[in-house]
This record gives sequence, structure tokens and C-alpha cells, in this order.
Amino acid sequence: MSEINQKALQYHKEHTGKLQISAKVKLEDADDLALAYTPGVASACLEIAKDPDNAYLYTSKGNSLVIVSDGTAVLGLGDVGPAAALPVLEGKALLMKKFAGIDVFPLCLDTKDPKEIIAICKAIAPGFGGIFLEDISAPRCVEIERTLIQDMNIPVFHDDQHGTAIVVLAAMINAARLTGKKPEETKIVMSGCGAAGSSIIRMLYNYGFTKIVAFNSKGCLHPKNRDKYDFLCQELLDYVNLDQKDYASMKEAMVSADAFIGVSVGNLLTKEMVASMNEKSVIMAMANPTPEISYADAKEAGAYIVGTGRSDFPNQINNLLAFPGLFRGVFDAKGTRITEEVKIAASRAIASLVSDEELTPEYIIPSPFDERVVPAIAKSVKEELEKAGLVRR
Amino acid sequence: MSEINQKALQYHKEHTGKLQISAKVKLEDADDLALAYTPGVASACLEIAKDPDNAYLYTSKGNSLVIVSDGTAVLGLGDVGPAAALPVLEGKALLMKKFAGIDVFPLCLDTKDPKEIIAICKAIAPGFGGIFLEDISAPRCVEIERTLIQDMNIPVFHDDQHGTAIVVLAAMINAARLTGKKPEETKIVMSGCGAAGSSIIRMLYNYGFTKIVAFNSKGCLHPKNRDKYDFLCQELLDYVNLDQKDYASMKEAMVSADAFIGVSVGNLLTKEMVASMNEKSVIMAMANPTPEISYADAKEAGAYIVGTGRSDFPNQINNLLAFPGLFRGVFDAKGTRITEEVKIAASRAIASLVSDEELTPEYIIPSPFDERVVPAIAKSVKEELEKAGLVRR
Repeated sequence: MSEINQKALQYHKEHTGKLQISAKVKLEDADDLALAYTPGVASACLEIAKDPDNAYLYTSKGNSLVIVSDGTAVLGLGDVGPAAALPVLEGKALLMKKFAGIDVFPLCLDTKDPKEIIAICKAIAPGFGGIFLEDISAPRCVEIERTLIQDMNIPVFHDDQHGTAIVVLAAMINAARLTGKKPEETKIVMSGCGAAGSSIIRMLYNYGFTKIVAFNSKGCLHPKNRDKYDFLCQELLDYVNLDQKDYASMKEAMVSADAFIGVSVGNLLTKEMVASMNEKSVIMAMANPTPEISYADAKEAGAYIVGTGRSDFPNQINNLLAFPGLFRGVFDAKGTRITEEVKIAASRAIASLVSDEELTPEYIIPSPFDERVVPAIAKSVKEELEKAGLVRR
Repeated sequence: MSEINQKALQYHKEHTGKLQISAKVKLEDADDLALAYTPGVASACLEIAKDPDNAYLYTSKGNSLVIVSDGTAVLGLGDVGPAAALPVLEGKALLMKKFAGIDVFPLCLDTKDPKEIIAICKAIAPGFGGIFLEDISAPRCVEIERTLIQDMNIPVFHDDQHGTAIVVLAAMINAARLTGKKPEETKIVMSGCGAAGSSIIRMLYNYGFTKIVAFNSKGCLHPKNRDKYDFLCQELLDYVNLDQKDYASMKEAMVSADAFIGVSVGNLLTKEMVASMNEKSVIMAMANPTPEISYADAKEAGAYIVGTGRSDFPNQINNLLAFPGLFRGVFDAKGTRITEEVKIAASRAIASLVSDEELTPEYIIPSPFDERVVPAIAKSVKEELEKAGLVRR
């Protein structure tokens, strides 16, 4: 076992997990007890019985998320089961608390049936300010998230779809600043059309990056194969490969491309493929833990900007940049829905934190530890929600 | 609005609720992040994927409860809806943390269907060490709890049924010490056969108080009316009124009774009825907020020992005496099931804290603020679970 794994197990074992419940109020004597519990608590119950929205005043609902996973797509590990998702859920809860001051309650579900997961999310909603879906496999995650967004009056967000997408768009916005290439003229080769891939494609397109060719494990997405695709890939046909070129391989598509974005599998790209791209090429190789091409190989092959999912190289595409600020903004605004525009506002906010003077191929996005990130995203998200009228009362 | 209600609303509003999530681990820099989250967290996930019981080592599962309510029987308020149950759930979570160091995650459910509630409890179980049911109306609560206890490998407990029952039995054990009456010779008139009432009856009976006459709102429980009863009252026919006397009224039954136990409605008992009881009579009048008879009236009418649910009179029958110590013991023992014997062990532990010297009609049970209560119950419960072999590994 590697040293980091040993250390991590010790870290998790030391206090038996990472999370606990604690009090926000004083509870020291019988007088406090009479306020926190019977008889005083009845007055809070009655106010909420009159109007369920009063739960935002008298309970922790308004600053709380429930993080829900069925354990089917945990990190890069796959379907490890609900209990094995718990360390990730606790970890995400810690991050959300530390970076955004939001209370996240972990819930791992022993069912993989989308209908059941949807029913459970709806049933548990009264106590939470929002639902944060995590580590649910595609395309089920998309079905679950869309149904919940449509049917519910609290915000719902699946981080694996949109967290990375928000950061990728931020990186691409700044890459465009640096290369001077217009979004609509930037030919992007996308590898991976699952949860993250499909959201990245949609966000890029909606922002203005409309020249995208996408590959899944079977090859280039093309209308001629529509009937063979799941609903997610079928939908993507409206966003990708709009000139309907029938690339026989990714190698072919990479010729004269301006950017490669990968959320697929390690060691997919060769140096030759990178060398065949246009000048000032951008590589976002985010397969975990082994990127589609290593940072060093991509640079050697001539890539101008390289980003990966790893913290040990420049330009880490880390969804930790996105989700704390996003939900801080949603809760600050009393937001009811996270739309495409809200996510794009988050991307713009992240991108804007890198000044013209700071912007280099090695620094196109800020660090998640940059203290300006959360407030900047939160402000931008709040403004967008208010502009769109997607707020309570 | 009364002063306490105003204060309580202010108390709930001041920090917007009472609960928060906090960290048990250090999370200060990128090194900690690599342990708490990717990449280190994967090692904890993989250990749990190998054996779900490893969640007790690497997550907060082993010291956590989920408290579940559908808001149908909140305090004395009735069916106020799921969101309105949240202040109670947060309150109970605070108490469990303060008194027993246990982390309780509130979950209020927007469904009243027992089947759905059962399915949800089963689905969410992987992340929790136990399930604490709260404020669910009878007889649904009984059906839900029994099914879960039977089908699940983590402890399940419905406080409204058994919390009060544990304390009532403790009080009756000490009342017997004081009066010298044998349990099997003590004629008990029971008022109320719902969630709490039925559990009180069963626990008293199983301990040895076998002379119980029970009344619901329609009258004396009697086999001749079996077909008119719900399943809960039908079952109680095996525990009450075993000589099948057909009392026309509670007044009739109270003549020569040794004890009255009420979890029903206020102002049900007259002084005359109390005066007709045997000497050294015991009155436990626990209707909330107005007892079946006031402490003063019961004493004036000649009752020897009087207990109520209120904190402003002696002998408060408060379930806060029971649930923290009970679950501390269950978790300390790695217990898998809370049986009748476990609950009786808790009652004995509570009763034993009052020494012969201390025992008076005004002091038959300790205060919930007595720091010996939780450890004493926990020890007793742990021993019982270990004796019965109801522990993990």
C-alpha cells in the first residue's frame, strides 16, 4: 500500500470518520432545554406548520444540503456500493463546510433504481435547502437530476456532471483570452460523453464554443448512429459535429484541432496527435488518476496550454473550484434552481479572477485555495439568480 | 404569545436552526485535502467496498443515528407535516449529542405511506449506525418499527413508543420498592393504548406487572370487542384485563386500583376516582401539557406517589432519561437489536440510581441532568446485549 493510502486510512480511522453534528445554540441547562426542546420547540413547529417556508427561519434547512449517492460511480473506482461512497460524501461535506460554510448531510442509498432514488430525494426534501447528487453513474444520473430539477422547488445539482464542466469552461474562457482564438472558431475534440462529458459539451456550446467533435468509446458521435446511442448521446447530436464529418478515428479528428478535452481514459492521446493540432493548442486531459496524455508529453509535443485533474501539475481542473462558491451563491440568493446561465456565471467568475497580467499558459485558472474564489462565484451566481427571478419570495 | 414561546422562536431564529455539521479531522492545507478527499479517500472507499462493515472503522457510521419522522404525531400537536417536525428532530439531535455524544442526522419525510417510509429507511441505512423513529402516528409507527427491526441489521428504535415506557417502568419499579407492593399484585389502570401506551403495557407486563386494565377512548379493552380494534389493541388483549372484567367506566376500574398510568388526555381523572384507589396509590399522569389530573389534585385526593410529564413538579417522566443512555450502550456494545430485555435493563438501571436512603414519594426517579444516568444505562444495556449475543462480530 502506498504511503498516501496508509496515511489516508489512518486519517479516517483516527476519529472514526470525518464528520460530526454540533450545536449552533447554547444548550447548558434546563432553561435552554425548554427552548430547544419541549415545551418551547412547539412554537417553532407551529410557525412552520402555518407555512413550510418558515423552516428557512427556524431550522437549519436554508443553509443545508443533503448529498446523495448510490455508490455506482465513486471517484474512478466505479460501482463500489453505497457504504463505500460514504468517505467521499463525508469528504465533500467537509470541503463544503470549510470553503463555503454550508452544512452537508451525507446520505448513501442502497438502491440503484432511478425511480426509487427520485422518490427518496423528493421525500427527504422538506428538511434540506438543496440536493447535491454525487457519484451516480451515467446516464441514470442525468435522468435523476433532470426529473428532480423539474419537479422540485429546491435547487438540485449533480457535481460529477457540472462541477468539472464549470471549471473546464472557465479554463477555456481564459485559454481563449490567451490564444486570441474566438470561441466559435475553436475546433474542440472532446473525448468522453458520459456525465461530465455531456455537461462540458453543453456548457461549452451554450457559451459559444460551437465547433465540437465528440468521441465516446465506440468512436465519433454521428447522426448515422443515432439509434445505437443512449438518450444522452442522442441529445448531444444537437451540440456536436454539426458539419457531420465522419472521422474514422480520434487521430483524424485531432488534425488541425485547437483544443482537446478529455474525461475518458488514461494514455489515449499520442504526442503525434498533439503535434498534428493547430498552433497554440489546448489540452485538458482530465482522466483520473492517469490523464489522456501526461503533462510533460503534451508540452513536449507542442501543446501551448495543458491542464489535468492532478494537483502536481499546473492548471488543475478541480471541481472544488466550483461547487462551494456555487452553493454559497445559491443560498445567499435564496435561489430555487441552478440553470445553465447560473453555471456559466460561475465559470465567468472563476475565469475573471486571473488578471491579464497573471494569465500565462501555466496559470489559466486560480487555485481552489485562493480565498477570492468562493466570494467571487457566490456574487456572480447570486446576481444571475436574482436577474432571472429564480429566488424565493 | 407566551413569553417562553417568544423566547423559543428567538432562540430558533438567532442562528437559523440549532444544528450544524462540523469536522472531526484536521483540514487545513492541500496535504490534509489529499487525505480527506482525492486521492487518499479512495483507500477508505476500497476498504469498505471489500467489507461494508469497514464503514464502522473509516466513517462516522458507528456513532451516528438518522432520526426519521413523517410529521404525523409531533409532540402534542398532531399531524403538522414533515417540515414542522424539523425543530423537534434538531432538538432531539442536540440532546443526543450533549447527553450521549452521538451524532444524529435529521430526516423528515414527505410521505405517510408506511411502505414508503420502510423502503426509505432501508435504503438510507448503509450510512448510519441506527435508525431513530420519531413522531410518527400510531398504529403506523408500530408496523414501521417492527418491520424494520425484523429486516435490518442495525438497531431501530421508536422513541415515542419506548422512551416513555422505559422511564415509566423505572418509576414503577421504584414505586414498588417504596410501597412494598409486589408487581404481580399491583392493579394498574392504564389510560391510552396508542404508541406509548401499548409499549408501556408490554414492558410492565414483561417485567411482572401482570394485573393491568387498559382503556382507550372508547372504553375498557375487552375480548368481546376484538373485531372492532386495530391490530395494536387486538394484541394488547394478551397483556391486559386477563380476568376479562367488563368495567363500564374508568371510574369503576379505579376502585381499589393500586396505580393509574395515563398517556391520554388532560383532566380525565377526578379527585373522587383517586380517592377510591387502594392505599399507597401511584398516579402517573403524563398527558401533555395538561396531565390527566394535576399534581396538586392527585396529592390532595390521597395519592401517595404522583408523577407527570412536567418539569415543574416532582417525578418528571421524561424520555430524555432513557434514549441517550440507551443508544450510548447500544453503540458501545456494537449492538444490533434493541429487544424488550434491553429496554428493561435500561429501566432497571434508571431505577437503581435512586438509593434506598434517597427514595421518597417525591423522588422515585433521577433527573435527566444527573450525570450518572447515561453511563449507568449504557453499562446495563451493553451487558444485556453482550449476554444475548446481539452484537457485531
